[in-house]
Amino acid sequence: MPTASRHAFVHRLPMRSPDDVSALATAIAQGTIAPAGIVAILGKTEGNGCVNDFTRAFAVRSLEALLGRHLASDAVRQIAMVMSGGTEGALSPHMIVFEAREADNDTPRAHAKSLALGRARTPELASEHLGRMPQVEQVAAGVQVAMADAGITDPADVHYVQVKCPLLTMERIEAAEARGQRTAVRDTLKSMGFSRGASALGVAVALGELASSDLSDQMICADYARYSERAATSGGVELLDHEILVAGMSADWTGPLAIDHAVMADGIDTEPARAALARLGLNVAGQVPAAERGRIAAVLAKAEAAQSGRVRGHRHTMLDDSDVSSTRHARAFVGGALAGLFGFTDLFVSGGAEHQGPDGGGPVAVIARRD
Amino acid sequence: MPTASRHAFVHRLPMRSPDDVSALATAIAQGTIAPAGIVAILGKTEGNGCVNDFTRAFAVRSLEALLGRHLASDAVRQIAMVMSGGTEGALSPHMIVFEAREADNDTPRAHAKSLALGRARTPELASEHLGRMPQVEQVAAGVQVAMADAGITDPADVHYVQVKCPLLTMERIEAAEARGQRTAVRDTLKSMGFSRGASALGVAVALGELASSDLSDQMICADYARYSERAATSGGVELLDHEILVAGMSADWTGPLAIDHAVMADGIDTEPARAALARLGLNVAGQVPAAERGRIAAVLAKAEAAQSGRVRGHRHTMLDDSDVSSTRHARAFVGGALAGLFGFTDLFVSGGAEHQGPDGGGPVAVIARRD
Amino acid sequence: MPTASRHAFVHRLPMRSPDDVSALATAIAQGTIAPAGIVAILGKTEGNGCVNDFTRAFAVRSLEALLGRHLASDAVRQIAMVMSGGTEGALSPHMIVFEAREADNDTPRAHAKSLALGRARTPELASEHLGRMPQVEQVAAGVQVAMADAGITDPADVHYVQVKCPLLTMERIEAAEARGQRTAVRDTLKSMGFSRGASALGVAVALGELASSDLSDQMICADYARYSERAATSGGVELLDHEILVAGMSADWTGPLAIDHAVMADGIDTEPARAALARLGLNVAGQVPAAERGRIAAVLAKAEAAQSGRVRGHRHTMLDDSDVSSTRHARAFVGGALAGLFGFTDLFVSGGAEHQGPDGGGPVAVIARRD
Amino acid sequence: MPTASRHAFVHRLPMRSPDDVSALATAIAQGTIAPAGIVAILGKTEGNGCVNDFTRAFAVRSLEALLGRHLASDAVRQIAMVMSGGTEGALSPHMIVFEAREADNDTPRAHAKSLALGRARTPELASEHLGRMPQVEQVAAGVQVAMADAGITDPADVHYVQVKCPLLTMERIEAAEARGQRTAVRDTLKSMGFSRGASALGVAVALGELASSDLSDQMICADYARYSERAATSGGVELLDHEILVAGMSADWTGPLAIDHAVMADGIDTEPARAALARLGLNVAGQVPAAERGRIAAVLAKAEAAQSGRVRGHRHTMLDDSDVSSTRHARAFVGGALAGLFGFTDLFVSGGAEHQGPDGGGPVAVIARRD
Repeated sequence: MPTASRHAFVHRLPMRSPDDVSALATAIAQGTIAPAGIVAILGKTEGNGCVNDFTRAFAVRSLEALLGRHLASDAVRQIAMVMSGGTEGALSPHMIVFEAREADNDTPRAHAKSLALGRARTPELASEHLGRMPQVEQVAAGVQVAMADAGITDPADVHYVQVKCPLLTMERIEAAEARGQRTAVRDTLKSMGFSRGASALGVAVALGELASSDLSDQMICADYARYSERAATSGGVELLDHEILVAGMSADWTGPLAIDHAVMADGIDTEPARAALARLGLNVAGQVPAAERGRIAAVLAKAEAAQSGRVRGHRHTMLDDSDVSSTRHARAFVGGALAGLFGFTDLFVSGGAEHQGPDGGGPVAVIARRD
Repeated sequence: MPTASRHAFVHRLPMRSPDDVSALATAIAQGTIAPAGIVAILGKTEGNGCVNDFTRAFAVRSLEALLGRHLASDAVRQIAMVMSGGTEGALSPHMIVFEAREADNDTPRAHAKSLALGRARTPELASEHLGRMPQVEQVAAGVQVAMADAGITDPADVHYVQVKCPLLTMERIEAAEARGQRTAVRDTLKSMGFSRGASALGVAVALGELASSDLSDQMICADYARYSERAATSGGVELLDHEILVAGMSADWTGPLAIDHAVMADGIDTEPARAALARLGLNVAGQVPAAERGRIAAVLAKAEAAQSGRVRGHRHTMLDDSDVSSTRHARAFVGGALAGLFGFTDLFVSGGAEHQGPDGGGPVAVIARRD
Repeated sequence: MPTASRHAFVHRLPMRSPDDVSALATAIAQGTIAPAGIVAILGKTEGNGCVNDFTRAFAVRSLEALLGRHLASDAVRQIAMVMSGGTEGALSPHMIVFEAREADNDTPRAHAKSLALGRARTPELASEHLGRMPQVEQVAAGVQVAMADAGITDPADVHYVQVKCPLLTMERIEAAEARGQRTAVRDTLKSMGFSRGASALGVAVALGELASSDLSDQMICADYARYSERAATSGGVELLDHEILVAGMSADWTGPLAIDHAVMADGIDTEPARAALARLGLNVAGQVPAAERGRIAAVLAKAEAAQSGRVRGHRHTMLDDSDVSSTRHARAFVGGALAGLFGFTDLFVSGGAEHQGPDGGGPVAVIARRD
Repeated sequence: MPTASRHAFVHRLPMRSPDDVSALATAIAQGTIAPAGIVAILGKTEGNGCVNDFTRAFAVRSLEALLGRHLASDAVRQIAMVMSGGTEGALSPHMIVFEAREADNDTPRAHAKSLALGRARTPELASEHLGRMPQVEQVAAGVQVAMADAGITDPADVHYVQVKCPLLTMERIEAAEARGQRTAVRDTLKSMGFSRGASALGVAVALGELASSDLSDQMICADYARYSERAATSGGVELLDHEILVAGMSADWTGPLAIDHAVMADGIDTEPARAALARLGLNVAGQVPAAERGRIAAVLAKAEAAQSGRVRGHRHTMLDDSDVSSTRHARAFVGGALAGLFGFTDLFVSGGAEHQGPDGGGPVAVIARRD
């Protein structure tokens, strides 16, 4: 087997509050995690995951403060930090730290390919391009850069693409209009959906799931039959470009970790995730038994309420509940379904799944340690 | 085999709104359900399941209006109607109609025992006895009457006991105090928990799960290590006595339906329910496949947030969420876990599980058609 | 003075729950209210006032059941029943019963004009006309019929027009499309706003506040600088036409009651309401003193969160709160502001104020007894 | 008149988000505020004001980061920072910066007394003393120290006492029990109420509103007829002692600012606040007119839902709403009532008013500039 140059580590750490970075601080102090190797940090924080969820920014601020004590501020800015609000039901607040180290080539490699990580940032997106084909194409190009960074050439080796994408604010809309341009939407909340949707379609194009020539502005956030099975996108007000993390399999990387993915057709469709586990070497009949749970490094899933108002023919009430947002309902319920399979609750289940899996369903990626 | 005298039917019917009784009206019109045979109706309605949930009363009013067109008002009052609010996540509003008919003894019976239903009402409970040992004993006696009504002699044949119990209002508290008595609590909301808890312990005593002599007033809603594995209790302001429904197995009943139960040790402990399914003849490795789902007549479960604040060592945030009640979180999450096993969403998952299963877990009863 | 033919009475009755009609039952039993004279019943019920608020339907069902014991079902259907959900803050659930009796002409009349009530129903609205100019015109025509019914000829004598208007359901949209028509919106929730907005503009046209020729389809739910100062509109799934109640002043009516109105420019603009009180003969410097409160028969107001996100230059957070709907915030806050003036809390403050007063403000009508 | 040594300034600054300290940064940059003179910062942040409100800590962290660039960390810690979550209705997020400067004795003083500020910290409170008489006495002693710091000798000159008090955590309870002590409560959320209540009674004792000898452990959070008219207390997990800010009138201070207070008997009792305004030289009949609003430096009020379930005899639904906490309802509603009087929305209305004003009412303090 050829020599690998890198080795990916994935650390799942608990959080006692949105600003609790003590587990990461301990891991750094003990040498378990080297700050310079951190590629990305994904976190589930305990806010409502909607507009007025300040737990995400609070967590990022706290991570930046901690890492700023170990790294130059430029290096801190390089780390993709994606906080997803909402730990409904018994979902447990946690962070997933993705770390890359140089491969130790004294140990012979046991696997032809291993978990590979790559990242990229796109140029800044013009506001009038948000939610339209130019965003799709810009993200598609960015994913290819991230794939190259990960050492992945075959799109089939990509199993998870996390994109943090910009959104419109009133100032940005007005600036575009001052330039004589019109944005896709004027509603700033809706712009988040359009940005997530176009970004997801960009992933689909980069991975060959969809052809750019088959897509159009009109389809974005309208024709949900077109989607990526491997995209997870989320919007943030703090950036104007896109921050992309690709996770897949590559011969350039070594180590026991591997990643695979599945698509849930609806909110209770857990069998595809079971099949992904099997492909990762974990054959389970019922729930993953306690002895095997330690092999699962991370579960990354998207949840949403079916627009049809039904799950397998039965009415759900998530879209009609004016007290609790449907995204909160969906995370709790899908979190329960997945926890019933995996046997633990610190699962990265996030909402807002436009063009990410079919209506009411969504992608699930699993990272596991092979024997 | 001895001749059976009765035959139980269980109908799971959808509801389009809290007052939608059209599916039941159709079933009556088509002769699928005979109003005179209805023993009990359990319903999941789409309110918040908490104090200001008026969907329960609205549903009961609508059922009474429909049944009042077919039965005398006395006969309507005989039917136990237990509405449970809260269809969080993708849980689906529905009602479960329990019907008893005379056995058709021309058809030879295929099973030694079949699903048996029995009901009872206790005397009115003095307000000062609520949440104390006299309530435990009164419910225990009532359960024995309902068992006799069901033709069940061995407590091991009982798998589900639904108790609707009274609660305290300010008027009732003051009336007790005027008689020189003190109630267990003066907080009317808390009185619901005490009534549910004492009722559940009453079930445990009747079924021999606990001995009355080992219990005391002090343990009620305090020592949650003592619980019933088969009780499901809920409070209602409209009654002063207890309305009890027992479901079990009896040679006095015939038909393909059978009931079994399991106890979830925590909110994701679905394997015991899988084992119960197997005992009912449904052996499934992953999710119940579509072809077999029709055999499952009803799933009746209790959900609650663990007071420990943890599920298998991981922190949950349900008890700290001041925007969404922990009971809503728990129903959504446990509903997802159970739907992941059963493959459908019209599951009767209710909250408020004092002394009903262990902290954070709860009983699950399954009624299924045998081949 | 000419002889009056009618005399209006207004009864403000408390509700202990959405289905509590006991105060009305008592008033009927005591002869205080004659069922045959009831023109309309407006109610504030304690649901969330949003999509899944079933307290409105529960209240209507209970009123129908009560009135059905006194009137033929046709006569019950004639009574306009408009339930508004949401008693946030200390707003108090109540109903306002509008009753018309024959004038007692033995008593000389003290006032040239008195509170006058009129009602009308329009033809059924084609779904493709909802939220468009044909609805504006249909409502305008209906208001004129109701004015005639009230004996009001001068639009300046109209102070309050309540319109209950239809909304779109998926079935109605599909039926329109099957006829080759396109509806103004396909989102059923949004159709409520469009129907309320077009109805309010219809009131404005009927009252001469706006000219139909200055309006267009494009302005509806877009140009909020155009509005009625006297409209209060609400949508209901149960009707296809419009149910209109006009309240104003007419020489055809006698009695001490009079109505006036004001427009709040924003959510704390209570001084115009104070001026309206003065025009009704109630001059108050601070809060209406206890001794005078009994003279106020009803306060009918609309509340909403300013789309600008500001009140007098200061940011509000109502539109960004994903836990509590902005309509709930607005009712609580405007309810507090008005209660601070009027000195009591059973105020009819409702939400959803498209084209009803300026952005963030709204109309207030006051009915008071003159000395 | 004797020479004053100090001069208090009060700055009301807007916040665009919980971590927005830009207005304070600008004021410091422009020399409007001298960081070294800051005595206290009170802030209204836009969280839910309940258990899982992280906007308070996020705001404090952001203030500390800003002030840490101007002051030594010890000096930052000296500043009392009290964030109150919840800007319901149109209440506007803002901070109130209290600053003390040396008096400029070249300008002759226009008033015998002016706004005076004093602060104190108590010793650490033993956990078993929380919610009991020793806490009452400790706070009473602390208030006297803060009064001395403010140069106030007559308790009648004190108009507002803000106390930030500790709460119990499971660790603190267990530590007390390990010492053989029992805490007043074991429920950590309830401990906040007990700490607030005992602290408020401590203020009452210090100000001579109540006598310590008339109080007992049993009365704390039970006998709400005993209360302070000038206390505002809030709990925080980050301290073990008490942080006390006293605001009153003293000859030791100069400048145009003065403070007075009133007590609302219920949530709509705005007339006492109007009288306080008059005592401060602002005589208004209706709403404070725009031209006078600039004279009002700060409004500090407490809001809560009446436990009686009624306001002036009319039922409110705040205590029965399981979707929205009663504290959120109360702040929105009382905020509306006060904004209707004062004419602006950046009012410091906070919840949790045990022993602070009568049941359902609460204290209001007003700081205004005299002519």
